[in-house]
Amino acid sequence: MRDIDRVIAYLQSEQQAAVDRLCQFLRIPSVSADSKYASDVRRAAEWVGSFLRDAGLKTETIENHGHPLILAETPHQDGLPIVLIYGHYDVQPAENIHLWTSSPFEPTIRNGAIYARGASDDKGQLLTHMLSVQAWKQVTGSWPVNFKFIVEGEEETGSHVLQRFLEQAGDRLACDCVVISDGSQFGPDQPAITYGLRGIAYFELRVFGPSHDLHSGAFGGTVTNPANALAQMLAGLVDDQGRVNIPGFYDDVEPPTPEERERLRQLPFDEKAFWQSLGVDSAVGEVGYSVLERRWIRPTYDVCGIWGGYQGEGAKTVIPAEAGAKISFRLVPRQQPGRVRELLERRLKELCPPGVRFQLIDLHGSPAVVTPLDSPFIKAAEKALRAVFPNPPVFTREGGSIPIVSKFQERLRADVLLLGWGQYDDNAHGPDEKFLLADFHRGTLASAYLWEEIREIANTRK
Amino acid sequence: MRDIDRVIAYLQSEQQAAVDRLCQFLRIPSVSADSKYASDVRRAAEWVGSFLRDAGLKTETIENHGHPLILAETPHQDGLPIVLIYGHYDVQPAENIHLWTSSPFEPTIRNGAIYARGASDDKGQLLTHMLSVQAWKQVTGSWPVNFKFIVEGEEETGSHVLQRFLEQAGDRLACDCVVISDGSQFGPDQPAITYGLRGIAYFELRVFGPSHDLHSGAFGGTVTNPANALAQMLAGLVDDQGRVNIPGFYDDVEPPTPEERERLRQLPFDEKAFWQSLGVDSAVGEVGYSVLERRWIRPTYDVCGIWGGYQGEGAKTVIPAEAGAKISFRLVPRQQPGRVRELLERRLKELCPPGVRFQLIDLHGSPAVVTPLDSPFIKAAEKALRAVFPNPPVFTREGGSIPIVSKFQERLRADVLLLGWGQYDDNAHGPDEKFLLADFHRGTLASAYLWEEIREIANTRK
Repeated sequence: MRDIDRVIAYLQSEQQAAVDRLCQFLRIPSVSADSKYASDVRRAAEWVGSFLRDAGLKTETIENHGHPLILAETPHQDGLPIVLIYGHYDVQPAENIHLWTSSPFEPTIRNGAIYARGASDDKGQLLTHMLSVQAWKQVTGSWPVNFKFIVEGEEETGSHVLQRFLEQAGDRLACDCVVISDGSQFGPDQPAITYGLRGIAYFELRVFGPSHDLHSGAFGGTVTNPANALAQMLAGLVDDQGRVNIPGFYDDVEPPTPEERERLRQLPFDEKAFWQSLGVDSAVGEVGYSVLERRWIRPTYDVCGIWGGYQGEGAKTVIPAEAGAKISFRLVPRQQPGRVRELLERRLKELCPPGVRFQLIDLHGSPAVVTPLDSPFIKAAEKALRAVFPNPPVFTREGGSIPIVSKFQERLRADVLLLGWGQYDDNAHGPDEKFLLADFHRGTLASAYLWEEIREIANTRK
Repeated sequence: MRDIDRVIAYLQSEQQAAVDRLCQFLRIPSVSADSKYASDVRRAAEWVGSFLRDAGLKTETIENHGHPLILAETPHQDGLPIVLIYGHYDVQPAENIHLWTSSPFEPTIRNGAIYARGASDDKGQLLTHMLSVQAWKQVTGSWPVNFKFIVEGEEETGSHVLQRFLEQAGDRLACDCVVISDGSQFGPDQPAITYGLRGIAYFELRVFGPSHDLHSGAFGGTVTNPANALAQMLAGLVDDQGRVNIPGFYDDVEPPTPEERERLRQLPFDEKAFWQSLGVDSAVGEVGYSVLERRWIRPTYDVCGIWGGYQGEGAKTVIPAEAGAKISFRLVPRQQPGRVRELLERRLKELCPPGVRFQLIDLHGSPAVVTPLDSPFIKAAEKALRAVFPNPPVFTREGGSIPIVSKFQERLRADVLLLGWGQYDDNAHGPDEKFLLADFHRGTLASAYLWEEIREIANTRK
């Protein structure tokens, strides 16, 4: 029996234990954006560190004015490739509790899926690699390749500690390829290898008017209302073709090639099923582009949050002293967040009516990434996925951003494998986030095969 | 010594006791818009009822699926005019607690003013009439006119119980004039008799998109974002001249007469001081109208509240499933809230982008009011104010609405005296609401004089 077959048999026999460990991990409310969860974030870091230490890796916690970074590595074996596995143990906030069927931090299994904040993004997906690396050692007594893990607690808030670590000590992460599972398959039973990610530029916009809230009767008509002004400014950032209305915004945007458009067109994408899964009756956006193009290769502008004035029950007749919004732009290759900020600020100055002033706060930014399709690691991944999933993988891009991926490419000059085990309706940032148990288990097996295939690349090269 | 002089002397000697009673009243957090304060609202009603009962009035509590209505009257004396005093014991919510210098429901005296939610709107002003009516009886053993009090607990939320009462049993409120103190003087030491009020049409607008919050990376660009759509719809309701951009909205708006514009122009209004008191560097609004015109005789559109998506600390990359706003229109005579609603709904249908749907909820509405300037009751009020204040009153209109006033005019066909004792910077609906003690005391004295003057009208007519 080959090593890999024994590892697979072991992982299959340990599936219930794997689910139990995932539940443990998911019970920790490691919301990185909200400082009141700081101690839970730390607990999640410790959980990861302790798992990897128990699996035999040398594990280190890196603290640098933010949430801890877990760095772990197997003892170096000469002649074997080095794989860097990246993941994050922090999760999105879980507001709108009333929209959750079960409590976000009490994992619950329904209809073959585990429901909890972080189930898919990213605890469940990260854990597949932790389990496969543990299993290789447990079953064979050694590892087929050299492993490094870098697991952060700030993916949802800008990866500041990890970015500083990369700048200061990036050499410690030197590797042949980076493996990341923090995304989706193309569909149920349809795995994907993702070769591109959009970037992001995320801001908070605050609009200030009178020094205090005013009675809308006594003062209505005499002063610029910051909530009205905010609506005007936000509306002014998009045109009637669904294009971002910021002069210069599209200057760096490369139009998609006919080949890429054709490849996207051929993907088995059921647009109507897509609408239905989102609960909308049409998918509307930038004129002239298909849904998949708008998701993956075109930039966007979204208001992610908006507030001001009275939000309670009934009526309050008030002119609020201020109003604000969180706004996100998704970027495509060659767009730079810093440049977007400049252009946005200039445009907001044009749009801001007299009588109010505004403040624009950077929350985070990172450029988009595209990886070459002919990388040997992509071939290895293709084989590993074929061994486990019922269909061969398709090659896709992603609409989301993993801000640190562009830093990895820049700093480590390694190929990046983006192997999402989730489904696009896992509700990663919304209520009732879930992860299919079948995907959790197949992801774990595919991960185990991947190390075998990467060892083979090295053998072939020798 | 005349009766009125003895009453005035008594009220002057009782000023500290009056402030103590006001503090008692203000400590009750009678927020009518928020159901969690329901029992406090009831306590405030009982406080008013018990005061008037102790003063010798026959007092009744009317319950009708809402906050209680207090009806009180003096024993009927033939040949004397009937004065109906209206006020409200409910208050606006007091959010943004961090913006209050002292707790909104722990009245605090600073710099000659009492600070508390409701100090000016309307507990302090209502109490002036309760005190003067009590004093007349206490000092003279009888009342100079017949009094009826109608005090409600839903002024801030639509006066539903009072409106039903007016429809069903309005005859019980039959009177010669209605006296209301729920507004402002024209300025410090500059009392005003207000002959016009704007109306209001207040709505909640909700915009619905996907059935659940979505990741703004994975889905951004493919669906209409309800928060973006809301901003667009709200922005589309106003044009670049500061005019409401709803076809038909101005059809019923009478342009101001040259005489009225001239009268407003002559009022001693320091526009720069007005800006400064609001903390803005200019007063901006509908092009072609002065600040006072825009405040009093032109309609408005204000976003009083707006919400959607993530409002917490940091960044959350989400497309919210829904977003909403509270929007208020102030109306001028001849505009009808029902008609405004029709026009608004039609306009929102034009503005609503594909991919989202909206719901428009009426929160409250009432038309504007104008009272004739040659009413004998207005002359009586002018004399009463001259007896107490250092300057003779000016005749003004108000930007705010007292929804029930239009109902009074319609149902009782009595003249309405609007005698605001507050100041325009009392912050009636914002943080640090206050009422100057000097205004509280002068209002009480002027109220006592007013009853004397109204008795004189009756004597003259005999």
